[in-house]
Amino acid sequence: MSGSNKRRSKKAGLSPGTLIHIGEKKKEKVTIKVIDYDEARFEEREVKDIEECFSFKSGPTITWINIDGLHEVEIIEKIGKQFSLHPLLQEDILNTDQRPKVEDHGTHIFIVLKTLSYDDNKKEIRIEQVSIVLGATFVISFYEGEGDIFNLIQKRIRNTIGRHRKMGADYLAYTLIDAIVDHYFFVLELLGERIEFLEEALVANPKPTTLQEIHKLKRELIFLRKSVWPLREVVSILERGESPLIQSAMMVFLRDVYDHTIQIIDSIETFRDIVSGMLDIYLSSLSNKMNEVMKVLTVIATIFIPLTFIVGVYGMNFKYMPELEKPWGYFMVWGVIILVALGMLTYFRKKKWL
Amino acid sequence: MSGSNKRRSKKAGLSPGTLIHIGEKKKEKVTIKVIDYDEARFEEREVKDIEECFSFKSGPTITWINIDGLHEVEIIEKIGKQFSLHPLLQEDILNTDQRPKVEDHGTHIFIVLKTLSYDDNKKEIRIEQVSIVLGATFVISFYEGEGDIFNLIQKRIRNTIGRHRKMGADYLAYTLIDAIVDHYFFVLELLGERIEFLEEALVANPKPTTLQEIHKLKRELIFLRKSVWPLREVVSILERGESPLIQSAMMVFLRDVYDHTIQIIDSIETFRDIVSGMLDIYLSSLSNKMNEVMKVLTVIATIFIPLTFIVGVYGMNFKYMPELEKPWGYFMVWGVIILVALGMLTYFRKKKWL
Amino acid sequence: MSGSNKRRSKKAGLSPGTLIHIGEKKKEKVTIKVIDYDEARFEEREVKDIEECFSFKSGPTITWINIDGLHEVEIIEKIGKQFSLHPLLQEDILNTDQRPKVEDHGTHIFIVLKTLSYDDNKKEIRIEQVSIVLGATFVISFYEGEGDIFNLIQKRIRNTIGRHRKMGADYLAYTLIDAIVDHYFFVLELLGERIEFLEEALVANPKPTTLQEIHKLKRELIFLRKSVWPLREVVSILERGESPLIQSAMMVFLRDVYDHTIQIIDSIETFRDIVSGMLDIYLSSLSNKMNEVMKVLTVIATIFIPLTFIVGVYGMNFKYMPELEKPWGYFMVWGVIILVALGMLTYFRKKKWL
Amino acid sequence: MSGSNKRRSKKAGLSPGTLIHIGEKKKEKVTIKVIDYDEARFEEREVKDIEECFSFKSGPTITWINIDGLHEVEIIEKIGKQFSLHPLLQEDILNTDQRPKVEDHGTHIFIVLKTLSYDDNKKEIRIEQVSIVLGATFVISFYEGEGDIFNLIQKRIRNTIGRHRKMGADYLAYTLIDAIVDHYFFVLELLGERIEFLEEALVANPKPTTLQEIHKLKRELIFLRKSVWPLREVVSILERGESPLIQSAMMVFLRDVYDHTIQIIDSIETFRDIVSGMLDIYLSSLSNKMNEVMKVLTVIATIFIPLTFIVGVYGMNFKYMPELEKPWGYFMVWGVIILVALGMLTYFRKKKWL
Amino acid sequence: MSGSNKRRSKKAGLSPGTLIHIGEKKKEKVTIKVIDYDEARFEEREVKDIEECFSFKSGPTITWINIDGLHEVEIIEKIGKQFSLHPLLQEDILNTDQRPKVEDHGTHIFIVLKTLSYDDNKKEIRIEQVSIVLGATFVISFYEGEGDIFNLIQKRIRNTIGRHRKMGADYLAYTLIDAIVDHYFFVLELLGERIEFLEEALVANPKPTTLQEIHKLKRELIFLRKSVWPLREVVSILERGESPLIQSAMMVFLRDVYDHTIQIIDSIETFRDIVSGMLDIYLSSLSNKMNEVMKVLTVIATIFIPLTFIVGVYGMNFKYMPELEKPWGYFMVWGVIILVALGMLTYFRKKKWL
Repeated sequence: MSGSNKRRSKKAGLSPGTLIHIGEKKKEKVTIKVIDYDEARFEEREVKDIEECFSFKSGPTITWINIDGLHEVEIIEKIGKQFSLHPLLQEDILNTDQRPKVEDHGTHIFIVLKTLSYDDNKKEIRIEQVSIVLGATFVISFYEGEGDIFNLIQKRIRNTIGRHRKMGADYLAYTLIDAIVDHYFFVLELLGERIEFLEEALVANPKPTTLQEIHKLKRELIFLRKSVWPLREVVSILERGESPLIQSAMMVFLRDVYDHTIQIIDSIETFRDIVSGMLDIYLSSLSNKMNEVMKVLTVIATIFIPLTFIVGVYGMNFKYMPELEKPWGYFMVWGVIILVALGMLTYFRKKKWL
Repeated sequence: MSGSNKRRSKKAGLSPGTLIHIGEKKKEKVTIKVIDYDEARFEEREVKDIEECFSFKSGPTITWINIDGLHEVEIIEKIGKQFSLHPLLQEDILNTDQRPKVEDHGTHIFIVLKTLSYDDNKKEIRIEQVSIVLGATFVISFYEGEGDIFNLIQKRIRNTIGRHRKMGADYLAYTLIDAIVDHYFFVLELLGERIEFLEEALVANPKPTTLQEIHKLKRELIFLRKSVWPLREVVSILERGESPLIQSAMMVFLRDVYDHTIQIIDSIETFRDIVSGMLDIYLSSLSNKMNEVMKVLTVIATIFIPLTFIVGVYGMNFKYMPELEKPWGYFMVWGVIILVALGMLTYFRKKKWL
Repeated sequence: MSGSNKRRSKKAGLSPGTLIHIGEKKKEKVTIKVIDYDEARFEEREVKDIEECFSFKSGPTITWINIDGLHEVEIIEKIGKQFSLHPLLQEDILNTDQRPKVEDHGTHIFIVLKTLSYDDNKKEIRIEQVSIVLGATFVISFYEGEGDIFNLIQKRIRNTIGRHRKMGADYLAYTLIDAIVDHYFFVLELLGERIEFLEEALVANPKPTTLQEIHKLKRELIFLRKSVWPLREVVSILERGESPLIQSAMMVFLRDVYDHTIQIIDSIETFRDIVSGMLDIYLSSLSNKMNEVMKVLTVIATIFIPLTFIVGVYGMNFKYMPELEKPWGYFMVWGVIILVALGMLTYFRKKKWL
Repeated sequence: MSGSNKRRSKKAGLSPGTLIHIGEKKKEKVTIKVIDYDEARFEEREVKDIEECFSFKSGPTITWINIDGLHEVEIIEKIGKQFSLHPLLQEDILNTDQRPKVEDHGTHIFIVLKTLSYDDNKKEIRIEQVSIVLGATFVISFYEGEGDIFNLIQKRIRNTIGRHRKMGADYLAYTLIDAIVDHYFFVLELLGERIEFLEEALVANPKPTTLQEIHKLKRELIFLRKSVWPLREVVSILERGESPLIQSAMMVFLRDVYDHTIQIIDSIETFRDIVSGMLDIYLSSLSNKMNEVMKVLTVIATIFIPLTFIVGVYGMNFKYMPELEKPWGYFMVWGVIILVALGMLTYFRKKKWL
Repeated sequence: MSGSNKRRSKKAGLSPGTLIHIGEKKKEKVTIKVIDYDEARFEEREVKDIEECFSFKSGPTITWINIDGLHEVEIIEKIGKQFSLHPLLQEDILNTDQRPKVEDHGTHIFIVLKTLSYDDNKKEIRIEQVSIVLGATFVISFYEGEGDIFNLIQKRIRNTIGRHRKMGADYLAYTLIDAIVDHYFFVLELLGERIEFLEEALVANPKPTTLQEIHKLKRELIFLRKSVWPLREVVSILERGESPLIQSAMMVFLRDVYDHTIQIIDSIETFRDIVSGMLDIYLSSLSNKMNEVMKVLTVIATIFIPLTFIVGVYGMNFKYMPELEKPWGYFMVWGVIILVALGMLTYFRKKKWL
């Protein structure tokens, strides 16, 4: 699970508001894209220099600046100056070890979220950070990785027919959040499948690797939970609608997102319950196997150890052993052996060990 | 347990409010029934085309439209247009992976609930979704499956004598909720019986399949809990009576339903406590069995291994072994054998292993 | 534990407010007793027909109607009509599967409680339901079983000297609740004794039946808890004193009952903690026993198996085995045997297995 | 742990407010001491008859009546009459099975607390009850046992220099509470030492008695917790300062006591966490030991059982066994034996069992 | 873990407000440093006598007095008199067994915090106490140990360019708190590394020392948690900004610290979850190992014990044993032996034990 060991400590002792990128450098180059639109107008441009975006800032059209990659600190600094973002806010954008949160700064709202995706190569869940700054007529989104999570939204905006072009910046911010939350369901379904697969493996043939799988799943759920619980709070604060930047018509949409986050939390808690139940099953099946092994050993040993004793008796070399002389001696011993063996078997059958 | 693996992810990336049916198609054809009544009048009709219902909408009589089956998206769309339901509300009706909730939309209240029933064929609990839209003079209910849960209510309305015909749409919605909640008790009783049965099996003869039964029960309780906890919230919000659509005379009825949901939650929590105790019992009884097996092995081995050694000694072929020549040698060995065996037995008796 | 498997489901589908007795029929005949008193006057009568009580209703004297046995539905119906009790309230009286609760109906307060008693025959805790309707000048109590829990209160009322006769209906209701709560302490003390007894058994000689006893205790505590937690809420609501039916002078008495319920809850939680600790002790002592058994087996087997090998060597029939010819061969073998045995014993002593 | 099995049930059925002493009689005679002081004046007297105290009641000086021993019910009754204490309050003083609590009776505040001390003879924690009645110019303290917890306070009052003589009755009550809470730290430190001692024993040599020690500690913590949690509530209510009997200058002192109670609760919860971790350690070390025992058995048995088979083969008495005739037969067998043994040892070394 | 066994009890019975140093004496001499600055002016001096500082108190410049070492009680007393600190506040500074807290005393705010650092020599986390008194123009900090945690802040103040010199005493207090909280991340990262290291050890080769490591980690997390949870409360109270000593411009900074404390708590809870999961893994892997050991024993014993019996049979010395005379007898026995062995191996393969 990525996202768990970022070097936060390198900031210790620095003055508050010092800008340092904390996190892995996930892509080579920072990509900046600006989309400017209203119902009538649409302009989309990929820019090299962040200053090119600033001309779009004024005017009544909605401006969306999307930045993929966070390791070039100066870009954040320039945007910060242009849009008068608080130094601590800029610091938070760069620090990818943030907890999801929302902050109302009056002229803009600052939202930090985590995206979930499944890395097919590393076979693990990838958690990445998205920061969104929502102003009256602009939205700036900062994305840690090189993702395509917002491509469908861009497509919808390009399309003149949809609702999107008639709505304000708050609706744009909502669609970004909605897209992120919708991706959670995808990861949850993958987890659900892995859990079902593991449960079948548990019943069919529990192995030490099954245990490690369970443990890995448990850890992933711990980290997922850490990302999702504060998300609920974030959406709940937005939904309460205390900022004039969010119009009251948005409430029904935000309530819908809120319902989704509750559902996601529900699912994670359910998964946790199921996974911790699986551990009990695993331990029980270990005990069961041990019992079975012990029974086999006990049955075999308990039957043959006394028999070996009996034949040992007549292997002794005493000069005077009356039975040895008798012609029926050997057959009598076989008789005793068979009787003892049958007796033991009956006993074990009664005990239900066989 | 059905209801746990619906393909929610197929909506990811779509524009909010896009209508897609999420869930299994549980029946072949969608059935639409309309009942229109007041104290004097009663009309009941099964319609093929949803438009036939809309004539009943106006007028002071209570109109109940009941729709079984959700996979025909256009029906929901037409109703949505006619009754001016918000696109997100329509989306929620179609998405059978909803959490129970209540939403006040001013001119109507939207309620999502889960029904519980026991599927005798699959031997599992079936969770299905019912959505209810309550307006001033109409109730529209959407049911995922092909159930008979509302048949008794229809019968009561047909009957002119009962209280039902004198009451408003809010009372009708209440009776629908009440009928759903009453069915929960039925499922809880079945679970209670299975738990008692398992407890007896645990004491009598615990087997690996018992463990799997316990695990299955535990999972079912996890899913039940997920359905029932939000139900409490739903009824509690309705009972607070902040909507003018619900008259104050309904409060005592809704409080009654609320008491029932609390009782159901209580029972589920109690079941969870009992079932998790059963796992401890199972593990302990495994340990007990292992102990018993080990004792048998130990008693047999500990008695016969030393004896086999003794007889082994006199099986050696040394030329000079004084005891072998003595006529009493053989009998002396038997004496030693018997003494050792008795000593061991006494020791085991003292240890309470026998 | 009685009280856990009542057939609530037989009500499913019936119109709300339909009167059906849910629960066991615990006594043959319903007994109705009416006591009418004020400071100067006292009348006590056992009546056959409920109508005889109604004459006492009017007038300023306090009237207490006590009904033991709930299976005659008409009695409840008649009382309901006479005292204008809501149909759902009547339903609740008959349904002995209620959760303790309090409802303020304006002219009367409805209280549902559970009594605890210990059934010496069945060796289990009996949970029964008492419903109390408190009006301005009357108290009606409905008791599921055939108990004597209120006998001492009747005696105190008969007695002209006590405080009881000077006080109102609210004080009478309080004394009923107080008597019920006081009985809880009795059951808790019995449980406390059983727990202490079990703890001693655990240390002295843990057996599978001890485990079953622990499990039974655990289940009883689960059910007790389910009865007692809502009781706290009930008394707390009464104590808040929002109803004009309860005079402010009652507050100090109700606070006292409230303190008792908190104490009872505390004790039950403490018992739960102790009992769940006992299970750990039991499992540990099983493991300890197993360890002991294994050590005995290992010591015996580890000493004698190598020795048996040694004597086996000289039991071989090779023609050319030089040691066999030597006169000291036999004694040398004994020497080796004794050395090996002593070495093993020293090793085990060092390992602290002996 | 004393304090857990008081006969509360003997009050069941009695009229509320009936005075009965519940608890052990901890000392022979009840001792009554009265201290009357203001800044200028100081009088201290041990009285035989409670009436002697009542003359001090009037007047502006602070009067502290301290009663050690609760089994003489009449003393409480007389005080109750003199200071107009509610019958239920008197009942609570006598009932030493109370939960810590505070009650504001207008003209006086009633506080119930638990003292902790360590009984060196019985090697257990002793929990005893102190009730304090705080009026405008008087404090009455009732102590269940024969303690010296308040001696230092008396000494401080005798001393004319200290702050104590200038302060009111509320400060006196505060010092009593502070003295009681300070004693908790003493008991916590003793527990802390026992825990450390046990932890070392666990690592060095876990024995069944270690388990019993852990269990005892766990039980003591359960009972401590039951005493301390309500204490926090008591001090918190006092600190909120809603009663005119407590001057606002006291707030900072009461906040200090409140901080101490929080710290005590923190320590108890920490101890609980540590102790429950110890149980896991104990169980793991049992499993470890078992593993070690099993390995020894397995190594010995696995090496010698095949060898015994080999020598058994050549102990057979067949007439035609070619190897027996060969002069190199015996040495060849020894060669095989040594090879097998070495092979097994190599295998075990690879498995890291040796 | 230091900080867990301070002798708090030596205060029991003393008058409240008596000044006694509780804690270890961590350094030889108390060091006092005073820094006095505003935007224009900067003075820094290490003083021997605390009185030298008091001249800085008056005047509009910000005065920071930093005291390292708490064992000289008179220093605290003199400061207390000079800055009119409440006796209980002075007591709290000296008592290093405090819980983090904040107290508003009107003219000054008193803050108690814990610093975390990792002691490389003792290989354990060191918890030390810092008390901060924040007035209108002064900050006094008391530090238990001899640390360098505030060196970087002093350097930043010396530097005329930074923001620091323009800000008030509240900003100085904030930077102190921020520095302390930033150090927490450092300790958390160390813990995170140890956890990862342990997890790998668990999978590769679990040993009893691994268990002790887990247990140690668990204990450290328990103590960390005890230090960090109240910290959240402290910062939350400061952030609410009810004191005029903290200007509203500070809110955004304090909110930032608050976010950090939440993140720290999150991490600790996550670590706790992971560590408690590791214990389960450890126990399971013990069981797995035991299973493996048992299988080896069972396979070997189950194959050879019957074979030893067979050869034992033909080691008997009966005069009349027909097989012994046959020339094919010996080879037949070998045949039987090989057949039995193969049968057993097939059985074990089928059981998946091999």
